[in-house]
Amino acid sequence: LRRGFPEVVYCEGKTPEQSAQILIRLAETGEGPVLGTRAGREVFDLVRRTHPSFEYEELSRMVFLRRGIGSPKGQVLVIAAGTSDLPVANEAVLTLELMGARVEQMIDVGVAGLHRLLGQLDRLYQARVLVVVAGMEGALPSVVAGLVDQPVIAVPTSVGYGSHLGGLTPLLSMLNSCSSGVGVVNIDNGFGAGYLAAMINRMGE
Amino acid sequence: LRRGFPEVVYCEGKTPEQSAQILIRLAETGEGPVLGTRAGREVFDLVRRTHPSFEYEELSRMVFLRRGIGSPKGQVLVIAAGTSDLPVANEAVLTLELMGARVEQMIDVGVAGLHRLLGQLDRLYQARVLVVVAGMEGALPSVVAGLVDQPVIAVPTSVGYGSHLGGLTPLLSMLNSCSSGVGVVNIDNGFGAGYLAAMINRMGE
Amino acid sequence: LRRGFPEVVYCEGKTPEQSAQILIRLAETGEGPVLGTRAGREVFDLVRRTHPSFEYEELSRMVFLRRGIGSPKGQVLVIAAGTSDLPVANEAVLTLELMGARVEQMIDVGVAGLHRLLGQLDRLYQARVLVVVAGMEGALPSVVAGLVDQPVIAVPTSVGYGSHLGGLTPLLSMLNSCSSGVGVVNIDNGFGAGYLAAMINRMGE
Amino acid sequence: LRRGFPEVVYCEGKTPEQSAQILIRLAETGEGPVLGTRAGREVFDLVRRTHPSFEYEELSRMVFLRRGIGSPKGQVLVIAAGTSDLPVANEAVLTLELMGARVEQMIDVGVAGLHRLLGQLDRLYQARVLVVVAGMEGALPSVVAGLVDQPVIAVPTSVGYGSHLGGLTPLLSMLNSCSSGVGVVNIDNGFGAGYLAAMINRMGE
Amino acid sequence: LRRGFPEVVYCEGKTPEQSAQILIRLAETGEGPVLGTRAGREVFDLVRRTHPSFEYEELSRMVFLRRGIGSPKGQVLVIAAGTSDLPVANEAVLTLELMGARVEQMIDVGVAGLHRLLGQLDRLYQARVLVVVAGMEGALPSVVAGLVDQPVIAVPTSVGYGSHLGGLTPLLSMLNSCSSGVGVVNIDNGFGAGYLAAMINRMGE
Amino acid sequence: LRRGFPEVVYCEGKTPEQSAQILIRLAETGEGPVLGTRAGREVFDLVRRTHPSFEYEELSRMVFLRRGIGSPKGQVLVIAAGTSDLPVANEAVLTLELMGARVEQMIDVGVAGLHRLLGQLDRLYQARVLVVVAGMEGALPSVVAGLVDQPVIAVPTSVGYGSHLGGLTPLLSMLNSCSSGVGVVNIDNGFGAGYLAAMINRMGE
Amino acid sequence: LRRGFPEVVYCEGKTPEQSAQILIRLAETGEGPVLGTRAGREVFDLVRRTHPSFEYEELSRMVFLRRGIGSPKGQVLVIAAGTSDLPVANEAVLTLELMGARVEQMIDVGVAGLHRLLGQLDRLYQARVLVVVAGMEGALPSVVAGLVDQPVIAVPTSVGYGSHLGGLTPLLSMLNSCSSGVGVVNIDNGFGAGYLAAMINRMGE
Amino acid sequence: LRRGFPEVVYCEGKTPEQSAQILIRLAETGEGPVLGTRAGREVFDLVRRTHPSFEYEELSRMVFLRRGIGSPKGQVLVIAAGTSDLPVANEAVLTLELMGARVEQMIDVGVAGLHRLLGQLDRLYQARVLVVVAGMEGALPSVVAGLVDQPVIAVPTSVGYGSHLGGLTPLLSMLNSCSSGVGVVNIDNGFGAGYLAAMINRMGE
Ligand SMILES: Nc1ncnc2c1ncn2[C@@H]1O[C@H](COP(=O)(O)O)[C@@H](O)[C@H]1O
Ligand SMILES: Nc1ncnc2c1ncn2[C@@H]1O[C@H](COP(=O)(O)O)[C@@H](O)[C@H]1O
Ligand SMILES: Nc1ncnc2c1ncn2[C@@H]1O[C@H](COP(=O)(O)O)[C@@H](O)[C@H]1O
Ligand SMILES: Nc1ncnc2c1ncn2[C@@H]1O[C@H](COP(=O)(O)O)[C@@H](O)[C@H]1O
Ligand SMILES: [Mg+2]
Ligand SMILES: [Mg+2]
Ligand SMILES: [Mg+2]
Ligand SMILES: [Mg+2]
Ligand SMILES: [Mg+2]
Ligand SMILES: [Mg+2]
Ligand SMILES: [Mg+2]
Ligand SMILES: [Mg+2]
Repeated sequence: LRRGFPEVVYCEGKTPEQSAQILIRLAETGEGPVLGTRAGREVFDLVRRTHPSFEYEELSRMVFLRRGIGSPKGQVLVIAAGTSDLPVANEAVLTLELMGARVEQMIDVGVAGLHRLLGQLDRLYQARVLVVVAGMEGALPSVVAGLVDQPVIAVPTSVGYGSHLGGLTPLLSMLNSCSSGVGVVNIDNGFGAGYLAAMINRMGE
Repeated sequence: LRRGFPEVVYCEGKTPEQSAQILIRLAETGEGPVLGTRAGREVFDLVRRTHPSFEYEELSRMVFLRRGIGSPKGQVLVIAAGTSDLPVANEAVLTLELMGARVEQMIDVGVAGLHRLLGQLDRLYQARVLVVVAGMEGALPSVVAGLVDQPVIAVPTSVGYGSHLGGLTPLLSMLNSCSSGVGVVNIDNGFGAGYLAAMINRMGE
Repeated sequence: LRRGFPEVVYCEGKTPEQSAQILIRLAETGEGPVLGTRAGREVFDLVRRTHPSFEYEELSRMVFLRRGIGSPKGQVLVIAAGTSDLPVANEAVLTLELMGARVEQMIDVGVAGLHRLLGQLDRLYQARVLVVVAGMEGALPSVVAGLVDQPVIAVPTSVGYGSHLGGLTPLLSMLNSCSSGVGVVNIDNGFGAGYLAAMINRMGE
Repeated sequence: LRRGFPEVVYCEGKTPEQSAQILIRLAETGEGPVLGTRAGREVFDLVRRTHPSFEYEELSRMVFLRRGIGSPKGQVLVIAAGTSDLPVANEAVLTLELMGARVEQMIDVGVAGLHRLLGQLDRLYQARVLVVVAGMEGALPSVVAGLVDQPVIAVPTSVGYGSHLGGLTPLLSMLNSCSSGVGVVNIDNGFGAGYLAAMINRMGE
Repeated sequence: LRRGFPEVVYCEGKTPEQSAQILIRLAETGEGPVLGTRAGREVFDLVRRTHPSFEYEELSRMVFLRRGIGSPKGQVLVIAAGTSDLPVANEAVLTLELMGARVEQMIDVGVAGLHRLLGQLDRLYQARVLVVVAGMEGALPSVVAGLVDQPVIAVPTSVGYGSHLGGLTPLLSMLNSCSSGVGVVNIDNGFGAGYLAAMINRMGE
Repeated sequence: LRRGFPEVVYCEGKTPEQSAQILIRLAETGEGPVLGTRAGREVFDLVRRTHPSFEYEELSRMVFLRRGIGSPKGQVLVIAAGTSDLPVANEAVLTLELMGARVEQMIDVGVAGLHRLLGQLDRLYQARVLVVVAGMEGALPSVVAGLVDQPVIAVPTSVGYGSHLGGLTPLLSMLNSCSSGVGVVNIDNGFGAGYLAAMINRMGE
Repeated sequence: LRRGFPEVVYCEGKTPEQSAQILIRLAETGEGPVLGTRAGREVFDLVRRTHPSFEYEELSRMVFLRRGIGSPKGQVLVIAAGTSDLPVANEAVLTLELMGARVEQMIDVGVAGLHRLLGQLDRLYQARVLVVVAGMEGALPSVVAGLVDQPVIAVPTSVGYGSHLGGLTPLLSMLNSCSSGVGVVNIDNGFGAGYLAAMINRMGE
Repeated sequence: LRRGFPEVVYCEGKTPEQSAQILIRLAETGEGPVLGTRAGREVFDLVRRTHPSFEYEELSRMVFLRRGIGSPKGQVLVIAAGTSDLPVANEAVLTLELMGARVEQMIDVGVAGLHRLLGQLDRLYQARVLVVVAGMEGALPSVVAGLVDQPVIAVPTSVGYGSHLGGLTPLLSMLNSCSSGVGVVNIDNGFGAGYLAAMINRMGE
């Protein structure tokens, strides 16, 4: 239906068989990319029997078919505060790629060591949109949005403990950002952030 | 600093004198638009003594100076579920206008009477970005994002009672939207939504 | 005691032996249907040794004896937003059937793809009562209740993640519905929804 | 549109002028009952200048026009745990009357003095539907639903203090009722309960 | 130190070895009863190697030494709403017995079937203190306290699901009881309830 | 009905006229004490016109009639952590007196200055029951219960700010006390604590 | 008792007369500084009648007597993210001064405009302890603690709206800081932060 | 970078390989102590293959290299309310040692048995800073801070059940302490408490 948007299946809460069946049907009826998020390895194993061109990304647990995407356009920067935020960041990156965006990544630039971020300001300025992934207190999107004039999509992660409340703390933090130009998505929702960022990135064409 | 961005003062928690003083200083040092949000009428009264070209919008409690804006660009649609959401919607509209966006409005199209929304699908498709303002259960952004392929900025409002929790219910609802392409801002944050939408709208130039 | 009501055992938090023993006693002392909810397969295995006419439904984990029910009466429509909501929807369907209601089902009609729902309005109008099962942001009951003039029983599910809060988000959403005519039951409580809907359906006789 | 349903305006968050204007328009364009909920006396004062047949109920703050209702049908019992729950109970009663239901009331039968409830079991059995309004710990709907075989619509109220949490405590209590056949509406939502009960009562015709 | 009080070890969060070691030391240094709560079977196995007179109660996971208790005094009634509340009720019963109280039990008398409770009012009146254990909506202590003139110790349990919130719902319910004479202890804290009830029961001597 | 228990009216959420009317009726039909809690001065003014022997206590806002009480029995100690807790403590004291208990008070003995408490241990030991009232972090009941072998009724107050959450913090603190023998009542519920303590105190006769 | 510590009265929840009386008694019995926090102007007016040397600070609502303090020692930096945080920051500053610390202030250096903070790094390095006051998302203490090697006392403020939850959002944010060396105090607790910082500052002598 | 501070890796949410790799790199590039917190035994096993001088502490799950620390300075007292709090207390102790502090420990001195604490007041007075670790209701830091004039770092633990809320109860309790001089860190954050206490202890040199 939507030109240039992948077909997406949210595999959590479905049996591997159900997920695989839907993914295969989408691969057979469409011509664009196909994506299964939150998919266990079993889903991948089932899918590639019929469609060997499907790929799997371990960390973010994504099954996908790169197809009919064209050369990457624009520029999106995905920033992850720490290495533990990588699964979520990867979900955003892959979603962006399947939606045709050129993607850059910047990792381990949390606010506890601000110089690592400040040393790469050029890369921040070059992006059309920025996806900022952070757990703990979720301060990074505020800092980044204060440095750039582009839209920032903030993704809280469930990385933390105690009063972190499974990610509610960085979520609330991001919603109350004192910097303007920040839109927030659900905890660990790398897919949603990538999807929205790709939509925005596309507008710059 | 930022070209085409208004100078903004958040007046809540400041005395009218403090707010007025900052607004006047900004009016005197800059050349672009100046905006004071959450400002009581006293702030306006103080400001216009010195600067009679400042205006005031009652519902959203905004004091502002339309200056150096240029002709409106692009197209942003601001949708409000009900009339009680108008103060927040107006905050978004005015922010968008001060940031140079062409703005359309659609009011009283809550999900309880879906035909009012479905009867105006054309207006939805014509926007580059949509700001959707809703209180109660906050279902409207999900429905709108399901109908369009453009970015949707969702704004929960504090309109409701009981288990509405001062707007937390529509906020959570919007963050858990089953539609893709939704970015969320804080409860009643019409300014933040307008600001982000204006940034995105600008990319279409 | 209650004519036409099944005898029901809530098996969660009981040992399989305890559950089985109560179910068998009910099967032996009564003449109507018997139902065990949230029952593991072990309960079924124990029960059918003595009573081979008991059945088991995997998805909703129900053990039951269809007995003394009579021909289905009235019309209840059970709507599930997505496939992941099926376990809860099935619990409602089976409860309704055991209580003598004629039941229809409609699946995968979430608000992200509204046309699927709007394309079947006739089926909505034909029901006396509607049970609407939804996770994520729980917007579906609002939309459905806005389209029909019959009572809607809303069931939030624990399908979701992050700020979904184990189903609290759709629960709150449903309680704050801007559509009138919605009664809400506990998260994942397909049984409770089916029971209440069957009571109401019966009144139309 | 809907035969036999009143036109309803939720007046909270609207100016008295706005509310009055909509109520007057509804009175002039329709032929059935008109209802304004959560309306201050100013709304009533404005409305009756043009339409002297409008009435006002102080406790529940309802402005209404009894018109085209017909003789009351069926039987609905509205039970209030205490006198402090009367504003909410009245909202339910008036809504029911405007929707054509015959209504009975039972007041001050909280669970702390169970004999007052048990002494009137006959009245409980005679109702087609029961609306049960309770604050504090919200135990009354569980007790009532355990005594009757008809649908119970439970309404938590904000009457209480401390860990009552503005009505969340009885709301949660009602959602977790160990009795079957209970549908719950939002805190203090007497209108919603009356509306749903009237819908169900009507099915008995 | 305290005459007639058992020595108590809370075994959760201790290794079986640590727990066993403390229990054995207490058995060797004192002459009264010794009690280990929340103890796995391993603790019991370790303890009885040295002290074969220790006993174990599976359901409540208590390791204990009945010693120096004397003949039971007074009368305490422990009421459990359902069979799933038995582990917590047993914890209360055993604690009471070790502290020298005569204990009676009443099970499966939840508010959904009030006649089972009302049929045994005599037993309620005969107790000096009542411990009432309930999960779900936690309405039982309110009902019981409304029927008797003695102190009621209310124990919420974690039996329930969804908006039950791990027992917070019955806890809040009990704290907001509309009946007077209710003291509340922590969720699942059968030991605490038994301890307090035993203290009170003792005063009647 | 209950010998030696006062007739009690909870005046919050009732109009002064309603409260006064009920209090007067109780004064005329009974022979024992009558008590109105959370009553404004207007209630008192209305009541004493007819019944000049009613008294009023400003701090706790109680209207009451000391009648048919007899000489005080037993010994209850009401401890308040700080002067701001006095309104709640007074509610407990007066309730106890009306129920025939001999009452002692100890004020300003919070855990920040433990020596003030430790210097009066004798008074602690002499009481049959202790009511401990505390806001802030609510640590006092734990400390007191650790020092005595009698039942402790803990009353959290809404005295505090920020993360005090209107008294939820000391409430939770008291429910999780590491000392045994503590029963908890609702936030600011001095009446409930006094009532329960009087019941227990009476058992020592 | 404590050498060099002021005598402190928390005036909230006390009548002006009570507060004034205690302050006057402290002024008369001691020789060091006296401090009343959260005091209305009435308290000051009452106190200075007897003791004209008391002073009042409007913003933080503090009544105090500078006496026996000695020359300021060490160096503490109090940072406030925005002007709305000044009342809380002032509370910390005055507390520090009364406890003998040399105090510096830095205002309006929120993370949305990081260059204002980075431009004054020298002042950060010169402090022995830093008190960082911030509302909104509360990111500032994380950023500051990442830049310095000294202890940071973080104070969340109630400045914000919507999902700010009266300051819980920055409180949680600060507790989950990814920077080490941060201790947190209660929302708006400028006094507590100043007190703790003064204690630490003193150790550097 | 920071003289005398260990290099620290937070191993939770990293694979053992990732953690080990970073720890080894830090051991090879630096000359001071290296610390891995929340590390499983696998991390230790991997690390010591290359660097046999690494050690492991089971209870707190810390991998560390004691190197370049110098003789212990100052005096810090780490107090744990119960044995179940030992894992968190140990995390604080080891962190302090690696940062060069002389550390003392005091265990099992919860407020339920205050005499055990009061019997060791001398040890309290001798410390420059105190770290107080407590679960349950978290009252211990208030009591300790009331007894001493030195800074107290309070650490809530997740030891408890029911309304303990995974440690939120003692966290809130500590933030609302009625004693002055308390700074709070996140639930179970022994490392953070030790780090801050070491910073403060160092100032006494
Ligand atoms: N990780 C994710 N988080 C949120 N939504 C998702 C995610 N992955 C897929 N979705 C959405 O879920 C929808 C698929 O749901 P389903 O029909 O259940 O497969 C797609 O339209 C996506 O927009
Ligand atoms: N007290 C109430 N609580 C919840 N919903 C209400 C209430 N009163 C009216 N409504 C609903 O609100 C709608 C009117 O909203 P509005 O269009 O803003 O006047 C009606 O369709 C009613 O269903
Ligand atoms: N199930 C329980 N819940 C709460 N407190 C308990 C429980 N069992 C034992 N306790 C208390 O915990 C203390 C023992 O703690 P410990 O010193 O860690 O063994 C005893 O003094 C008991 O009062
Ligand atoms: N248990 C802990 N809790 C909180 N923060 C920690 C903990 N252990 C280490 N850290 C901090 O986390 C940082 C290391 O994070 P990472 O770069 O992900 O290894 C260090 O700078 C420490 O300050
Ligand atoms: Mg920016
Ligand atoms: Mg869309
Ligand atoms: Mg409808
Ligand atoms: Mg029933
Ligand atoms: Mg009673
Ligand atoms: Mg005790
Ligand atoms: Mg630092
Ligand atoms: Mg101290």
